[in-house]
Amino acid sequence: CLMLHSRFLGYLCAILFGIILFNYRALSEDSAMENIVTEKKAEESHRQDSADLLIFILLLTLTILTIWLFKHRRFRFLHETGLAMIYGLLVGVVLRYGIHVPRDVSNVNLNCHVNASPATLLVDVRGKFYEYTLKRVISANEVDDLQDNEMLRKVTFDPEVFFNILLPPIIFHAGYSLKRRHFFRNMGSILAYAFLGTVISCFIIGLLMYGCVMLMKQVGQLGGDFFFTDCLFFGAIVSATDPVTVLAIFNELQVDADLYALLFGESVLNDAVAVVLSSSIVAYQPEGDNSHTFEVMAMLKSFGIFLGVFSGSFALGVATGIVTFTKLRDFQLLETALFFLMSWSTFLLAEACGFTGVVAVLFCGITQAHYTFNNLSPESQDRTKQLFELLNFLAENFIFSYMGLTLFTFQNHVFNPMFIVGAFLAVFLGRAANIYPLSLLLNLGRRNKIRSNFQHMMMFAGLRGAMTFALSIRDTATYARQMMFSTTLLVVFFTVWICGGGTTQMLSCQHIRVGVDSDQDNSMSIAEGSERRSTKQESAWLFRIWYNFDHNYLKPILTHSDGDINLTYGDITVSTDATGAHTSGGPAFAGATSSEDLDRELTYGDHELVMRGTRLVLPMDDSEPPFTDPHNRLRM
Amino acid sequence: CLMLHSRFLGYLCAILFGIILFNYRALSEDSAMENIVTEKKAEESHRQDSADLLIFILLLTLTILTIWLFKHRRFRFLHETGLAMIYGLLVGVVLRYGIHVPRDVSNVNLNCHVNASPATLLVDVRGKFYEYTLKRVISANEVDDLQDNEMLRKVTFDPEVFFNILLPPIIFHAGYSLKRRHFFRNMGSILAYAFLGTVISCFIIGLLMYGCVMLMKQVGQLGGDFFFTDCLFFGAIVSATDPVTVLAIFNELQVDADLYALLFGESVLNDAVAVVLSSSIVAYQPEGDNSHTFEVMAMLKSFGIFLGVFSGSFALGVATGIVTFTKLRDFQLLETALFFLMSWSTFLLAEACGFTGVVAVLFCGITQAHYTFNNLSPESQDRTKQLFELLNFLAENFIFSYMGLTLFTFQNHVFNPMFIVGAFLAVFLGRAANIYPLSLLLNLGRRNKIRSNFQHMMMFAGLRGAMTFALSIRDTATYARQMMFSTTLLVVFFTVWICGGGTTQMLSCQHIRVGVDSDQDNSMSIAEGSERRSTKQESAWLFRIWYNFDHNYLKPILTHSDGDINLTYGDITVSTDATGAHTSGGPAFAGATSSEDLDRELTYGDHELVMRGTRLVLPMDDSEPPFTDPHNRLRM
Repeated sequence: CLMLHSRFLGYLCAILFGIILFNYRALSEDSAMENIVTEKKAEESHRQDSADLLIFILLLTLTILTIWLFKHRRFRFLHETGLAMIYGLLVGVVLRYGIHVPRDVSNVNLNCHVNASPATLLVDVRGKFYEYTLKRVISANEVDDLQDNEMLRKVTFDPEVFFNILLPPIIFHAGYSLKRRHFFRNMGSILAYAFLGTVISCFIIGLLMYGCVMLMKQVGQLGGDFFFTDCLFFGAIVSATDPVTVLAIFNELQVDADLYALLFGESVLNDAVAVVLSSSIVAYQPEGDNSHTFEVMAMLKSFGIFLGVFSGSFALGVATGIVTFTKLRDFQLLETALFFLMSWSTFLLAEACGFTGVVAVLFCGITQAHYTFNNLSPESQDRTKQLFELLNFLAENFIFSYMGLTLFTFQNHVFNPMFIVGAFLAVFLGRAANIYPLSLLLNLGRRNKIRSNFQHMMMFAGLRGAMTFALSIRDTATYARQMMFSTTLLVVFFTVWICGGGTTQMLSCQHIRVGVDSDQDNSMSIAEGSERRSTKQESAWLFRIWYNFDHNYLKPILTHSDGDINLTYGDITVSTDATGAHTSGGPAFAGATSSEDLDRELTYGDHELVMRGTRLVLPMDDSEPPFTDPHNRLRM
Repeated sequence: CLMLHSRFLGYLCAILFGIILFNYRALSEDSAMENIVTEKKAEESHRQDSADLLIFILLLTLTILTIWLFKHRRFRFLHETGLAMIYGLLVGVVLRYGIHVPRDVSNVNLNCHVNASPATLLVDVRGKFYEYTLKRVISANEVDDLQDNEMLRKVTFDPEVFFNILLPPIIFHAGYSLKRRHFFRNMGSILAYAFLGTVISCFIIGLLMYGCVMLMKQVGQLGGDFFFTDCLFFGAIVSATDPVTVLAIFNELQVDADLYALLFGESVLNDAVAVVLSSSIVAYQPEGDNSHTFEVMAMLKSFGIFLGVFSGSFALGVATGIVTFTKLRDFQLLETALFFLMSWSTFLLAEACGFTGVVAVLFCGITQAHYTFNNLSPESQDRTKQLFELLNFLAENFIFSYMGLTLFTFQNHVFNPMFIVGAFLAVFLGRAANIYPLSLLLNLGRRNKIRSNFQHMMMFAGLRGAMTFALSIRDTATYARQMMFSTTLLVVFFTVWICGGGTTQMLSCQHIRVGVDSDQDNSMSIAEGSERRSTKQESAWLFRIWYNFDHNYLKPILTHSDGDINLTYGDITVSTDATGAHTSGGPAFAGATSSEDLDRELTYGDHELVMRGTRLVLPMDDSEPPFTDPHNRLRM
């Protein structure tokens, strides 16, 4: 049956592709034959756009079907993102070499010499006015390419689409699905890796690349300007890690929760750091004639921008995250819609204020997962999780398949072997300079040490993904940026395929234990009545301060959990990981632990209660059972 | 607490608005002061766009909060769509009269005289090329308006957004949530109202408006050309009914299921008919000099286009709907993503082929609800329903709030009192000419007659909504179209507020029974063992043929329901309305009947079984219980 399905879908795709190609041929012949009116032109352009989008939808469909096959057979070497890239590559090859639709020349040759470049242009054609909007600036040598292949131009998206439409749901989902208990437990280390580590990595890579570029200039391999700020910019964008492949395997194999938290937390936060860092580097502009000399004032200004934008985005994200505590529990649709709109408005508000929307959305997601999530009705908790999961999945796979496509369809690639080799070396060394020294330092303060096999794994899991791509494609106007973009693509391909594909091998090679159910551990220890190492005892001072402040002041104010979730009784603290219970259809809590579920912690005072299944274990000497009807009272 | 929330959100909105306005002022001052480089311009434009979108997000947020208040107090006079319009109106007034941001003149005054109007324009500014894309054609008198108010221009969306982005999810959701049992039972009547009725209404309105326009020409009130085809076009666009307000109240009050099915089915299908009809009327072009004379060949051609586009879209929608039967049940995320992508690709494919995407999506939705839905896993059934419910909700409220806004922000309104009065009269008479004569004819063939109070209710429920608006805003270039657009807006406002708001009054005035649970009826009759009038017996010949064909051939092939839903046992037929059972957390089927759930019918042979609660009643003399463990076997 499987074979039949795949073959059937193969036929379907072939037919659809046929229609798309036929459409192109028909349209280009049409438009060559006569001078058609604007309305008809717009209609044709709309049809073409539909056909273009269809290519991507088909790519995603194919990816989904193949992933399903892989998951079905437990084939772990290739993650969906890697697969999406492969399909993108294949379609890119077909578009590049298989089809050649010459561009309608009359569309382009009309050059109009003016002295300004306004955002809106009015063209007067015999009394009729045509309004044009500025799309982009192109260099003189690109003008010839424009007339070359209409098809390639058509499948090229506006780079801002990635940053403003596809990235926000991915980043928000990362924040919203952060496993908060383990995240906060390792907060100090995560912050160190994400902030210090990213800055170290950025400067190491920048310096190494500057050396590489100097060398290239010596041997005459450099075809254009490449300044130190460009090198730093490159360092910033390739410092954003995206170990989605690795984490998917970790999740499946149930690798140690602390390692998971360290990697996930670092990658989520370093995206934010890299975005702000790269925009601060772009903002570095010395006063003098030569705009690429070192100047203290300009650097301080850049540093100020970094701090201002980061803290502004952070504050805005947290503020709107806190504001969205709702009381619309009776109407799930309204609740979900409101939640979605508020998250989106965080992004827009940040962008409108001149902050970074992506960063604001990340912290909004974390805040909402921590506070707002508990205020939602169980149905809305499910709905919002599923909605953002879907958006994240679609956006992520779209970006990765576009990455594959653009390797062949992007028209201004600059592949320089020396730069590429240098970049791979720099990326490796930059990652090493982030992980190993910081781990050494952190282990001085940590009770639960980061062992050397964990360090090697973190080193290995430094994949580059969506954020690196979105940052590098944003501006490909200059020679330096084009070379960076091409090199970045190769770095992403290599890390996702090789490092991502070798995760299971690396895990077994480093003797990292799999199949660890962290929740099981906890409930066991309580059930045995042993002195359980509480979350507080095993973590660092930073966490202790935050934990106390959060649980004594913030949570009571921001979580008005008077509904199903408020499980406090006397002095008991309730901590449940079971958010999926009400969807399982069985009695509450049965089979509810899913590793993808958000943790839900409701501590009260000094005690902690973990509920598993329908059993209720209380670490106190109370003769009377505290909950007479746990099934009803504890319904989640 | 409620008051506190509203006041708090009021403050929040005020602050956000403040930021948006401040942003505008700052930007316009900036850009007036110096000639900024393109990059900075793009950044500013992006910030402005973010601020604009934020206005709409805030409008939707406000709408949601107010609806919640209304629902909480069971206030049924104003539906969320009507409310969205009111908020839109208020913001429109503020934008129109409260804020005046003069447009940056230097952006516009650059007129370049050329002989063609290409889709892409290259502008050569001292060696640097700027690529411009054609946005729209504007008439000479609009050029002055352009410089008038930047703010109004900024909040104006591309009209195609409504048709290509916002309408598809609404229409798909309508098809996907069609209550199929009652729909198919009344299929003959629904098809008559939707096809014949819409055509009748279109021509009646067209003729009446032509008379009105002739009269206006006599008294010299007509300021431009208005041809008979324009009148017909107006007839087509205002014939699309959208009784979302009425149906929401029907749903809440549990009005007779047949009346609901008639109204809902008619409104869903007549949208499709109106779209294709209007595009056929636009395609009517006689050969001769005068392009507005009557010509048989041209009319036949238009009729051919209608048939071709409609049947093409229908076939394509049904085909892709059938193709999306999936076997990915183990991975709900993949399943939902695939479902979403296939539905979207239906739209794109139809548009790429030159058919009407909206119509294709409608029939795709109906087909998927009928076949594919049964093949999905229970989790995916929920997920897809919730996803499209949310998309529908957001898109619908966005359109209605934009409608309110555009009454004040649209700059080329033509309000002609005579035309408006004529239009209201024509709309009323056109609806009457659709409902009453057709009901008379249909009652000749129906056993279950459409009573006169039902007819009055259908007459009253002919609201105009999103489709009418999207069709009328698509093209507002000529005088005739501008007058149509302004009048259409008023028709929508009147029907949504007056007819929508008076639904409960009309129901009680017409003595239509409320609180009818159609499912309860069925299960009762079976439980009593009485001879139940089966669905087949009470319906017409058209339905009988379809029913037999569907259940004997199509369903067995297309519904590979070997999972949870295949509840056949021997010769018994199972029909359940309980799709929500597994989310309620209690035992399966308990409290599962929700009026919003899709029906799930699994008939087999001649028998029918209705399951309610955990009780299982079988109308056959079988000593052995057929299901030993109904809880597990019948888990849905």
